[in-house]
Amino acid sequence: MVISAMGKETDELLLMADRVSKTQPGREMDMLITAGERKAVALMCMALADLGVPAQSFTGSQAGFVTDTNHRNAKILEIRPGRVLEAIEAGIVPVVAGAQGMSTDRDVTFLGRGGSDTTAVALAKVLAADVCELYTDVSGVFSADPRVVPAAQKMSSITFDELLEMTATGCPKPAMRSVEVAHNHAVPLHVRSAFTWELGTYVGEKDLLVEEPIIRAVTHDTSESKLTVVGVPDRPGVAATLFRALADDNINVDMIVQNVAADGTTDISFTVPTEDLDRASGVIDNGVADRLGIRGVVSDRAVGRVSVIGAGMKSNPGVAATMFETLAANGINIDMISTSAIRISCVVNADQVEQAVQYLHTAFGLDGQ
Amino acid sequence: MVISAMGKETDELLLMADRVSKTQPGREMDMLITAGERKAVALMCMALADLGVPAQSFTGSQAGFVTDTNHRNAKILEIRPGRVLEAIEAGIVPVVAGAQGMSTDRDVTFLGRGGSDTTAVALAKVLAADVCELYTDVSGVFSADPRVVPAAQKMSSITFDELLEMTATGCPKPAMRSVEVAHNHAVPLHVRSAFTWELGTYVGEKDLLVEEPIIRAVTHDTSESKLTVVGVPDRPGVAATLFRALADDNINVDMIVQNVAADGTTDISFTVPTEDLDRASGVIDNGVADRLGIRGVVSDRAVGRVSVIGAGMKSNPGVAATMFETLAANGINIDMISTSAIRISCVVNADQVEQAVQYLHTAFGLDGQ
Repeated sequence: MVISAMGKETDELLLMADRVSKTQPGREMDMLITAGERKAVALMCMALADLGVPAQSFTGSQAGFVTDTNHRNAKILEIRPGRVLEAIEAGIVPVVAGAQGMSTDRDVTFLGRGGSDTTAVALAKVLAADVCELYTDVSGVFSADPRVVPAAQKMSSITFDELLEMTATGCPKPAMRSVEVAHNHAVPLHVRSAFTWELGTYVGEKDLLVEEPIIRAVTHDTSESKLTVVGVPDRPGVAATLFRALADDNINVDMIVQNVAADGTTDISFTVPTEDLDRASGVIDNGVADRLGIRGVVSDRAVGRVSVIGAGMKSNPGVAATMFETLAANGINIDMISTSAIRISCVVNADQVEQAVQYLHTAFGLDGQ
Repeated sequence: MVISAMGKETDELLLMADRVSKTQPGREMDMLITAGERKAVALMCMALADLGVPAQSFTGSQAGFVTDTNHRNAKILEIRPGRVLEAIEAGIVPVVAGAQGMSTDRDVTFLGRGGSDTTAVALAKVLAADVCELYTDVSGVFSADPRVVPAAQKMSSITFDELLEMTATGCPKPAMRSVEVAHNHAVPLHVRSAFTWELGTYVGEKDLLVEEPIIRAVTHDTSESKLTVVGVPDRPGVAATLFRALADDNINVDMIVQNVAADGTTDISFTVPTEDLDRASGVIDNGVADRLGIRGVVSDRAVGRVSVIGAGMKSNPGVAATMFETLAANGINIDMISTSAIRISCVVNADQVEQAVQYLHTAFGLDGQ
């Protein structure tokens, strides 16, 4: 068992550090933050002991996690799970503190926020476990958000590629980092509820279903806004300059669409997280616009993205057509389109996002009984 | 620098354990409790870094404290201070987590409440430090409680034996355990304020004063009550049975005085902490009294103890006489007397304790300017 700090403890520890220090040396921040997981593993073992389950806590160091010396975001170099294996062989549940290790300089290190998943997956890998079970507050991965689509179904299995597309386009759980780590280490995940024993969703390299449906899920995201840069001269290097300026200001651009207009200029539209919208407009207005000869910037907060995802679309032409037809037939206008090999996303008006999800979920045959 | 957990944190961690577990396995309790010091050392190093002082935190394990496997109350077996020495040699302040170590089974251990003093003294010993500075909320050791005797003076030095008698008879700071540990390891202490740079009180094997006064301090304690067992048959083994019964019930008896009466019976008076008074009466009434043929038990909550302390009394007869005369001259009746080689204690009425302290402080020439 690998566990994280309880509740908001990591945030509280960071607040304490803010109160005493501006410099916050990394070595000491890691000593501080890892105390949260240390308390959690000890309390967990006590609770297990009361249930008659023999358990032993292990810090990252005791569990054999050797990391580099990059404090606050250390990377695992090696795992020596001798003590964890001894415990398992003795019938004792090892309870390992997540997101921590000991550096090659023998200092305490922290693997970063969400690092407990890294610990769990790495331990599953080194112990050659069949699967890494990820206990969450959802009972599995669903074909759409059940709050929006009551007929959404829990999937018994899904591939890493599909789940990564889902988390990237609005599926909130599991966290993308957990999925990436498991995918990178080829450790199958079982995403399940921390509160019931029902089976959740198995995530692996290949889907376990005999007959794969073409589309597995419909996701949506209303946390982004759209910016359109109007009248961009159509010459090489313009887009590069524009997006380099945004990247330099740490603005994470998601979808990008460009249309060439008749008069030798183009319009470039892209989405950014809504909280970065004003900053992104500022970067363009106050620097890049003049330099590139851009006419203006139009922003639109009232947009949302709806995506259909499924590895089956690779061998089934017509998915995009079905998606566009479904939206058109229901009076939903498409503003932007982007695709990957196993995903098609459309930007639509924010107030039509939920309808779009519902119609597409039905159109692709995902509704449950 | 050796530091403890902040504020009430250790109490809070114990409360958390109470909420999740009745069994509270020692190994896990130690993992939990030691998290408090871990947070404290990290925050201290951050604060020092902000002041431009290079500092590094060390857990008990990192500082080289090897202990036995007796969880919650581990004993130090060996200290390997290599990393602490390296830090000092590099001009870095080592900040060591108090009261913790790593057992010979490589588990985290806790040295018990107040164990940070043990850590500090043991580290001072192994580093061959000149002195172990104990930073407290008092500026040193005083010749009497300054709240009772405004003329009380801070002592520049005192011997361990004298300070131990003082803490045993009511002087609240420093904690007796710190003094005992330092005394046992022959590590001189400097008891001083955490809030000012004024010199405090040096505590060593020998007094540093050229000319020692006979009496160094007057202490008092009103936390005890008196019990008198009346009509005890005067034969061997009776007192032993009585005090064994109290000890078996974990009642800590302090002063004991016995007088033989004319009729072949004796009265035995003794003091116990007031919170144990009812329990002590019960132990005697409901068991020992009948067995020993005791007539009855009389308890008195309204008592206090006043003590004069000084190694000089060994070679200066007449200290006891001066003490008794001073009390008598001021109308203070003495209820019980007990003595050690360097201390005389009298039990008096509780409402006369403060007067007694003031008169004795003056009588023995301790008043400042």
